[in-house]
Amino acid sequence: MTKPLRIGVAGLGTVGVGVVKILAARREFLAAAAGRSIDIVAVSARNKAKARGIDIGSARWEDDALKLATADDIDVVVELIGGAEGVARALVETALANGKHVVTANKALIAHHGIALAKLAENKGVALNYEAAVAGGIPIIKALREGLAANEIESVTGILNGTCNYILTEMETTGRDFADVLKDAQALGYAEADPSFDVGGIDAAHKLAILASLAFGREVDFGSVNIEGIEKITAADIKFAKEFGYKIKLLAIATKSDGGVEQRVHPALVAEGSPLAAVSGVFNAVAVRGDRVGLLVLEGRGAGEGPTASAVLSDLVDIARGLVMPPFIVPTSHLKAPAKAAEGGPESAYYLRFNAVDRAGSMAEITRALANASVSIERIVQRGDEGDTGRKPVVFVTHKTQESSMRQALAHLLKLVDVAGTPLVIRIEDGESR
Amino acid sequence: MTKPLRIGVAGLGTVGVGVVKILAARREFLAAAAGRSIDIVAVSARNKAKARGIDIGSARWEDDALKLATADDIDVVVELIGGAEGVARALVETALANGKHVVTANKALIAHHGIALAKLAENKGVALNYEAAVAGGIPIIKALREGLAANEIESVTGILNGTCNYILTEMETTGRDFADVLKDAQALGYAEADPSFDVGGIDAAHKLAILASLAFGREVDFGSVNIEGIEKITAADIKFAKEFGYKIKLLAIATKSDGGVEQRVHPALVAEGSPLAAVSGVFNAVAVRGDRVGLLVLEGRGAGEGPTASAVLSDLVDIARGLVMPPFIVPTSHLKAPAKAAEGGPESAYYLRFNAVDRAGSMAEITRALANASVSIERIVQRGDEGDTGRKPVVFVTHKTQESSMRQALAHLLKLVDVAGTPLVIRIEDGESR
Repeated sequence: MTKPLRIGVAGLGTVGVGVVKILAARREFLAAAAGRSIDIVAVSARNKAKARGIDIGSARWEDDALKLATADDIDVVVELIGGAEGVARALVETALANGKHVVTANKALIAHHGIALAKLAENKGVALNYEAAVAGGIPIIKALREGLAANEIESVTGILNGTCNYILTEMETTGRDFADVLKDAQALGYAEADPSFDVGGIDAAHKLAILASLAFGREVDFGSVNIEGIEKITAADIKFAKEFGYKIKLLAIATKSDGGVEQRVHPALVAEGSPLAAVSGVFNAVAVRGDRVGLLVLEGRGAGEGPTASAVLSDLVDIARGLVMPPFIVPTSHLKAPAKAAEGGPESAYYLRFNAVDRAGSMAEITRALANASVSIERIVQRGDEGDTGRKPVVFVTHKTQESSMRQALAHLLKLVDVAGTPLVIRIEDGESR
Repeated sequence: MTKPLRIGVAGLGTVGVGVVKILAARREFLAAAAGRSIDIVAVSARNKAKARGIDIGSARWEDDALKLATADDIDVVVELIGGAEGVARALVETALANGKHVVTANKALIAHHGIALAKLAENKGVALNYEAAVAGGIPIIKALREGLAANEIESVTGILNGTCNYILTEMETTGRDFADVLKDAQALGYAEADPSFDVGGIDAAHKLAILASLAFGREVDFGSVNIEGIEKITAADIKFAKEFGYKIKLLAIATKSDGGVEQRVHPALVAEGSPLAAVSGVFNAVAVRGDRVGLLVLEGRGAGEGPTASAVLSDLVDIARGLVMPPFIVPTSHLKAPAKAAEGGPESAYYLRFNAVDRAGSMAEITRALANASVSIERIVQRGDEGDTGRKPVVFVTHKTQESSMRQALAHLLKLVDVAGTPLVIRIEDGESR
């Protein structure tokens, strides 16, 4: 058996603790699988005194995480600190520059600096592995970097944020409203005290930008992701959607179109019976369409100690086995520059909900506004049993239409005195039907 | 860039043709991804004259596939001939013994001789890759060998035969009977002229035995798989199942239990809304439960030129990138000997259907027979509108019960004069609910 793979772990939060536990519990098996033992020689975290329920054995403690990046006795730095800047970034940059392999679970870092870091890694001939950064325990990075390498990818569609999916599922099963369910999710530890990264769609967008780069052979382009969160979804929307045969999911979608890539994160109505509609609770899923493989759907837990640590270990075993590949499938010199697809995207049906004054003629004005924007209506639902202000919720489902038409329709609607507030517009997606 | 990876392809059927096409179409991308070009230097197939719509360029033709295994200018033999014995086996054995990497799509070969071949590969330090042997384009071998290496696997449940899944889905959507749909499937090329390997469950069992070995760290043990096909499923069964909230699927299940592994392939009632119930048509799916990752479900196309060739290419890219790992995750010396779990398996609810003479007292006798075997009944359906012989179909759904009790109940039923023919017994499984 060859020399041990010596690792330094920076960050001992949920994931770091999970990594330490698995390396202890599965020590012999992992050594047999990897052909060499994987040894933790140093760890670093902010608070040495904190009780974590783990035994770091003979590993040394470093107060300064950056020391892991320069230590002579470390082959791999495992970065589990998080954040696109600060210590995490400095640690990864220094480690790579010093010829150390890096394993990270840091989606923000890869989404913002992935290509620059990949160049550093390539220069030194070391690995930059980030399986845990996207969709936790689902081996989607491995699937794209290795399993599907023979395919031209046509699209990637994911449910990439477990917090949002948990909240939407809870809203659906309990009929409660967003704010209410969010509070519970925070109490249960499923949502952060500041939930904006999750419910605002940024976390999913980080992950999508990484997947899109891998799928389409272009540099990561987080800045071009169109992002919309789930904050405006009400229990009523979920009820209406159900009535129409849909679930509401926060989807992250990347597609190749004329000369560019379209990346968007937004709530969508997804047809019941489709693979993505069925993904409930904290589960994540990714559907990939490749020219050879067709549709491939992977579903699993997107967060938590076990799933995320499992992904980190997979990256470590790869390195121990001697696998060093370009971080974005091909060398960065082969990646095309980012190119944002023309606005608008493909035609889509839409769900449109707003409150309207309930008087004779108001519906005629509203439907005329839609018709003037060439938006044709498949279904109208008006509920008389809600609201007590003379304003009643009106819901439209449109036929397939251009996004530009929908935008024009919205502008028309906003001018009508009978329409109260800003209408909610949600795309209807097919949920990657088989 | 390092030296090209030189491959010899044996077998130019659907998959072989797909491999040749992809290597031509994606030549530059694959070279960038793999760090070296992947060149076909020789091919072999039974009939040189056959029109295949491919251009093998400067690759030489070998009438004798075995020549690929000894040629000095070949690094990897790609075996796409098929069959557990004969040329395929000789070719793979000889290639490995000569220190050549092997990529194969041959499930029968791996199910019967995988461990012996892995030993050969280990002795020579070469790769034996077989992603295409199980579930076509779904990267399940990669997931188990690499992505989930940190997990103790608890169970693997799959829909592993596209022919069966297509037939059952067609029976469900059209209401037609097995023999009828099978004939159509054969005409469409979804089923072989001799369909027994598929519909009899053997093909799924080959794949299951491979997955079980990877999941549980034991030598492949095809002989211990309990196998039952879908031949006895009628359109009526599918209709009854639907009425009760289930779909009928051919499941392949491997679980770890006291001191052994239980492997079984059989039709099962799977609860609607569960991940496996949703898998329709020619799609395959595999659900893995790991102690760290929890439930992971992979779904995709299990056969066909594109998906299977995509898997073969993934294996080739791994080799080109320098990845050589133990074929069954750990070296064969670390694998435990096969151990079949005690018969019976876990408690399960059952679906039970037979024809009974419709006379006063017959139902009392039947239910007494079940009670005497300690089988308790959740639901009985008796249809008066079928059959014209005085015999009517009776369907029972039982509460959870031991397999031994069900067997005893069956024995009792067979003794009753009112029961015609052999009752059909189908397990009810939860379909890997989230």
